[in-house]
Order: sequence, then structure tokens, then C-alpha cells
Amino acid sequence: MSSSTAGQVIRCKAAVAWEAGKPLVIEEVEVAPPQVMEVRLKILFTSLCHTDVYFWEAKGQTPVFPRIFGHEAGGIVESVGEGVTELKPGDHVLPVFTGECKECAHCKSEESNMCDLLRINTDRGRLMISDGQSRFSINGKPIYHFVGSSTFSEYTVVHIGCLAKINPLAPLDKVCVLSCGISTGLGAALNVAKPKKGSTVAVFGLGAVGLAAAEGARISGASRIIGIDLNPSRFDEAKKFGVTEFVNPKDHEKPVQEVIVEMTGGGVDRSIECTGNVNAMISAFECVHDGWGVAVLVGVPHKDAVFKTHPMNLLNERTLKGTFFGNYKPRSDLPSVVEKYMNKELELEKFITHEVPFSEINKAFEYMLDGAGLRCIIRMEG
Amino acid sequence: MSSSTAGQVIRCKAAVAWEAGKPLVIEEVEVAPPQVMEVRLKILFTSLCHTDVYFWEAKGQTPVFPRIFGHEAGGIVESVGEGVTELKPGDHVLPVFTGECKECAHCKSEESNMCDLLRINTDRGRLMISDGQSRFSINGKPIYHFVGSSTFSEYTVVHIGCLAKINPLAPLDKVCVLSCGISTGLGAALNVAKPKKGSTVAVFGLGAVGLAAAEGARISGASRIIGIDLNPSRFDEAKKFGVTEFVNPKDHEKPVQEVIVEMTGGGVDRSIECTGNVNAMISAFECVHDGWGVAVLVGVPHKDAVFKTHPMNLLNERTLKGTFFGNYKPRSDLPSVVEKYMNKELELEKFITHEVPFSEINKAFEYMLDGAGLRCIIRMEG
Repeated sequence: MSSSTAGQVIRCKAAVAWEAGKPLVIEEVEVAPPQVMEVRLKILFTSLCHTDVYFWEAKGQTPVFPRIFGHEAGGIVESVGEGVTELKPGDHVLPVFTGECKECAHCKSEESNMCDLLRINTDRGRLMISDGQSRFSINGKPIYHFVGSSTFSEYTVVHIGCLAKINPLAPLDKVCVLSCGISTGLGAALNVAKPKKGSTVAVFGLGAVGLAAAEGARISGASRIIGIDLNPSRFDEAKKFGVTEFVNPKDHEKPVQEVIVEMTGGGVDRSIECTGNVNAMISAFECVHDGWGVAVLVGVPHKDAVFKTHPMNLLNERTLKGTFFGNYKPRSDLPSVVEKYMNKELELEKFITHEVPFSEINKAFEYMLDGAGLRCIIRMEG
Repeated sequence: MSSSTAGQVIRCKAAVAWEAGKPLVIEEVEVAPPQVMEVRLKILFTSLCHTDVYFWEAKGQTPVFPRIFGHEAGGIVESVGEGVTELKPGDHVLPVFTGECKECAHCKSEESNMCDLLRINTDRGRLMISDGQSRFSINGKPIYHFVGSSTFSEYTVVHIGCLAKINPLAPLDKVCVLSCGISTGLGAALNVAKPKKGSTVAVFGLGAVGLAAAEGARISGASRIIGIDLNPSRFDEAKKFGVTEFVNPKDHEKPVQEVIVEMTGGGVDRSIECTGNVNAMISAFECVHDGWGVAVLVGVPHKDAVFKTHPMNLLNERTLKGTFFGNYKPRSDLPSVVEKYMNKELELEKFITHEVPFSEINKAFEYMLDGAGLRCIIRMEG
């Protein structure tokens, strides 16, 4: 990384998705200098998340190609655009798919992280908001961004509001996974469900987000963590994240919420839904104890999904709430999550099950499509 | 009130409902002495609540008659049964339709008031839980209780867990309305919705409970309180309770939640649903602001009602929760609500729109059936 490149177009390698569902191709791309309130960064490590795969497959979507995917990453600031005072070349940052402008009603609210300006918008996130242009091109032909991040490139340009400045001592090959899924699950537990010490927590879905929620419940001192998944092979791994019991809905004739209510003598204190399946959402809500139970929805539902329940389930003093990115404000809060890792409160190594060099990025897609492991780190160098 | 009656059957007047929907008849009844953990009280003032009328009409219910209705009241302890140490003759009390045993998981939880032993149970509440008997009879023939209260009688017997001991200086003809509906609405605002100073609150349903919720929002310092009701004649009265704007869903073609979202530039900070209509519940939820909005359900729904919404409404950081009796624990918390009245933080006079002597109790039913006024106080003496 050299400041001699500031103000210049950088030519570097990026993994370009030319078509839906087709392997990415490593290409030489041009990365334009950052414009007003933008930052150009050198990506050192990136990891693959389901959301990349979902938009790469582009099923049921208007396809947006060619595009550079990737939104979980760790990098170092190369240069900054006009108006950027908070970051300087050399700073270590995590880019985030959603942002924090610090000016809007959401940013000013203690409760919300849903920034009006920079809230995730998969349509808007394919171009930069300052001028509606892309910073990526190949021979002058623009390549689309992805959720304002596009970390499958040696260099990328990101809005200042989507960058968390972190401790430079934090190993970027580990903390890069905090850019998205892990923080989403962790925050759902620590910031929203807030289980008390000794409480019982149900986690629906034992992928990376669900296991991060379990990790949050473990950190909070929950004494029983019940993992629910249709795939029993996930249980062994889940034990590392504090899951103490396992329920496979397929093993029971009655609805899983009834099974959990029986196991716990009335219901769990907290539940966290990380699948996005609307029936799992209903089960997650109906398995919490009356009087004090809180169900937290994390998984993103199908656009036609309808959440249904008898209102007496609510009247009996249950709470239902949703969360987005674990209620973390990217700039204000993510640095402290990195500190949790540095202080050894939070374990990240166990989320990282694979690692590949950038040249083999398509292997990361294969691992995810096979359901193998949790996170695959992609090393940009070497 | 005289302790010379302790241990004796008391003969006194009670308003007996002999048949569904037929006027009550003032009869001489026998009131047996209180048994283990029970208290006999002299009722001085009682008021009529919709729940009395609902069970008196007994539509779609298995009728339970003859019965003594009434559950909002203020009285004075006449004598106590075995094991009662917290109350003594002469203490001023409010009987409550739900209880607090102080021993169960709910009573020990800071969050719940849904006591396992004494939670409202309209079936169970027709007989005393210690022996499954009634304490009321006429010529030896038992008369059923109602939700463990039966305050339409000069004397009644109530479980110790359903009695709040209050400041003896508090005027019972005012604070008696805190036994049920007013505390329900007030607590929904103060304990559950907790609007911040300067916030915007929507209240669905401007009956006594809804107006008590508005009063709670007013006490909390809400700057805009939007009242929603199908009956525009309620708006004038509602102004006394802090309601600043009024929306009649009938005046709009679009769903009322959309009207409110437009009025408020994105939604209200808090909403409180006090009608029990499931469509109003859905509107109340969908009119809160994303990022921080909280909808609180108070109204009791039809048994076949289904609450439906798109789960993205939750994922966008909205919270939906229900409350029962305003989350007040009857014994622990109600005395402090009486103090709020004594300190002039809370106004109760404006809820009391009618007053009748006991001999004219059927007039109170007529006022309520006509939708006239809010609360009718029934004076037991004179």
C-alpha cells in the first residue's frame, strides 16, 4: 500500500462475476480514486457469506452483471476522498454492507442502526451514491459494485459511512468475519435478546449466524442453549459454540415449539431465529415462556412470507422483535466487537473452517454450496 | 366494619345475577368467613368494567349463574383467615381480578405479573381456590364468585394474593377504578411502551383503557398523542387525557397504519392497542417507526383471531409485545399507582363520569351498554 497511488487509477486483480451462477474470473480491473466521502482500501482478507452466493445465483432477481461480489473483509486505507477526516492512509478497517451517516434520525437514535442514507440497499449498492457511477471498470467498461462493498478485489472504494476503523493490532484474517454474519448473530444475542445469566436460549438454524448467536448466549452466561436444525450433522460443531442440547424438528410429530415448551417446563427465556423460514419464525416466537420470553428474528424472510400467530401469545407478555446486523451501528459499535476478540471474550477461530488463496476463490463458493464448514477466508496475497 | 363479625357468617346485600343479560337483583346473601389465605372485606365503592358486562351477557360462553359480578372496587378489611399476616382488619385494599402469590416463577421474575397460582382464570375464579367452594350463599344455596373478586356485594371474600394494601388516606371512591381497566391502560404506557419525552404515541381505542394509556403517555411527556377510534364523539373527551390528534379509520380509504405513517413522517415511536380487534392490532404494529418503534397490545382478542404481518416489518427493528394488567404486580405495584394519584401526577376524576347508589346498580349497566361515559362508581352505602 503506497500513498503514491493516491489520486491515480489503480490497476489490480478482482474476481469478476460475468454471469449468474458462473464461476468468477480473476481479471485486471481499474479502480478509480475515491470521490467525496469515499475511501479506497486495499483488501487483505475477505470471506464468503450466503448473501454473496444468493445474489450471484440471482434466482428470481433482475440480474446485475458484471459485478464484483464480496462484503466481509478486512483492509487498510490506501487513500481518502474529499471530506473524509476520520480515516487516513494506513488505518485498518472493516467494510460493512450497511452504513452509519451519523446525521439521520436512525443514527441519532440510540435504538436503531438503520441509517437512512446508507442502510443496505442491494439496488443502490451497485453504484456509488455520490455520483451514481461505478469505481470499477475493465477497459473503461463499468463493473457493478455489490452492497457498496465489493471486497473480492485487491482494491475497492467504499463510502466512509460503511467503514469501521479498528484496532491495528487485530489480525485481519480473523476479524474480517465480523463484517457481516458473525456480528449479526452475536449482536442479536448480546444487544437484542440479552439473555440473563443462567437463562435458557433456543437458537433456530446452526449456520454461521446461528452459531454466532449461540456464542453470544454463551458469553451472556446462558446455562442451556438449545440448537434447532434440520441437519443433525451440525450438532457436533455446535457444541463448540455453547449449544448444550439439540432438537431436530424432523424427529418429532408435534410442532417443534411444543417440544421445546415441554423440554423447558413452559418455554425458553429467549429465542433467536436465524434461518429466515417463516415457520421457524413462528416456532421461535411460540416457544418462548409467557410472562417474560423474548423472540428475536434475524433471518431474512421470503418476500411473500406471512408471520401468523394467535394474539393471545402476545398478550401473555411475550415479546417479538427483529434485528438487522445485530443492532450494531457499523462505525460506532464494530470497533468494540473487535476488542471483545482481542480480550479473548469472543472466539472467532472456530468460525473459520477453510482458507483459500484469491486465485482459488471459486472453491469458497463450492464449500458453501456443499454446506461444508462455516467461513472460508480468502487470502488476497500469496 | 366491626371485628365482632370475625369468624361469623355475615348477612348483607349483594347484587345477584340470576340469568344471563337479566337485571341484577339486590338480595340478602350469606358471606362465609375467610378461610386459609383469604380475607373478607367490606366494599365501599365499586365500579363497572366491560368484563363484568361481557360475562353477564354470557354470549358464546357456558353460562355460570347465579353469580355476583364486580371486580373494580375499594374496600376495608373486616377479618382475615388462617395464614394471613400481611393484612389486618381496618386496612384499606383494592381487590384485583388477578393475583400475586410471591412464590412462583412469574412472581419472582422482575418482568412478569402472570402469577401461576392466581393469574386470572374466569373458570377457576368462580370458586375459592383453597377448597373449591363459594363463600356466598342464599339460604344455603351457593352463589358463584367472579374472577375471585365479586365486589357487587357489601362484603366479599378474596384471596390475600389478590389484594393490594393501599394508603388509608386515599379516597376509595376515586382509587377504586385502579383495580382493573385504568391500571391496565396506564401500565401499558408507563411500564411497557415507555415513550420517551417528546415522542409520538398512537392509541387505538378511546374507551377507559385507551384513555388511561393516553394519560400514561401524557405523564411520560409524549408530545403528540394520536387517538384512533371509529366513534368521533370520543375525541372531545379524549383531549382531557392528552390526545392531541384524532384519526377515524372510516374517514380514509387507505389502511389507517398508512395514514399514521404519513402523518408522522415514518411512523409513531410507540403504539398502544386497546380495542382487542385483530385488525386494529395489525394496524397498531404496522404504524410504528422502523428502527425503534414499539407496539403494545392490550385488548383481548377473539379466540379465533390470527395476527398476521410480513416478517420484514419485524426485521426492520420493530418490537411487538403484549401486556396484561399493565404489567403491574397487584400487591407489589398497585400501592405506588395510588401514590401517583395522591401526588397529583395521575388524574382519576376525569375517568369517573357517573355515580349511582348500590340500589341503582342496573343503571351502571345501562350507561355502559349505551356507550355513555367511562366509569360509573357504585356507592355501596347511602
